[in-house]
Amino acid sequence: MIGRLNHVGIATPSIEEALKVWRDLLGATRVHPAFDLPAQGVRVCFVDTPNSQIELIEPLGEASPLHGFLARNPKGGQHHVCFEVPDIIAARDEMRAKGCTILGTGEPRIGAHGTPIIFVHPKDMGGVLVELMETPQNADGMEAH
Amino acid sequence: MIGRLNHVGIATPSIEEALKVWRDLLGATRVHPAFDLPAQGVRVCFVDTPNSQIELIEPLGEASPLHGFLARNPKGGQHHVCFEVPDIIAARDEMRAKGCTILGTGEPRIGAHGTPIIFVHPKDMGGVLVELMETPQNADGMEAH
Repeated sequence: MIGRLNHVGIATPSIEEALKVWRDLLGATRVHPAFDLPAQGVRVCFVDTPNSQIELIEPLGEASPLHGFLARNPKGGQHHVCFEVPDIIAARDEMRAKGCTILGTGEPRIGAHGTPIIFVHPKDMGGVLVELMETPQNADGMEAH
Repeated sequence: MIGRLNHVGIATPSIEEALKVWRDLLGATRVHPAFDLPAQGVRVCFVDTPNSQIELIEPLGEASPLHGFLARNPKGGQHHVCFEVPDIIAARDEMRAKGCTILGTGEPRIGAHGTPIIFVHPKDMGGVLVELMETPQNADGMEAH
């Protein structure tokens, strides 16, 4: 079922500070402009690698789901991994049929790349928060370059 | 500096149990045989995605560095991210010159893909354990397919 590793989500108290790591220390050269995802309570910034992306995620607002993670990991850390799937509804139904818990209502939301996403509960995924994302029709710079 | 996202390292108390997640639930179809890395105190198993890999890591022996991680995360979880670099010594020296701490002696060890690797301390990497790995000359099935 799972396709490309679209991105690794990394939580940070500050995207600006995190970019000092990814751009200045690790030398990443393609950094996309940061933007808010208010419905999800996060601000995000994608950093390209030749074959995938790092998604830096900063809390947006008091109700951000990231506050709990950052309380446990004040410096930030790896938050989730995101894989592409061809059909998000089919993927959700398959995961549910296999006994997995989908976070929230289970209805896909529009994710940072403009396609529907779901999150599968880490308790079913060996402690890993797994995002499934419908493959973008227009990869828009997210493929190898 | 950093190149391809070679793999995401995921710690698990049991590779066999983890494969129930990655193969049976998430439907990964390319799973490599597991093998021991005694010098590093881990047993590893690579799972391919079309563009990268997941490295499942299980403790090997009493002195395994994974025991501490699993004590904090009994189900397992995201452990490190690994990026390819063209020259591991140049990468190490550059990271040190920028003030980063290299784990262990700082001398590269041979990693799971047979090329030299180092780990950069998470305190310098926004809470993320970063592995740098010299790009394999023979990608041996690790490229997109």
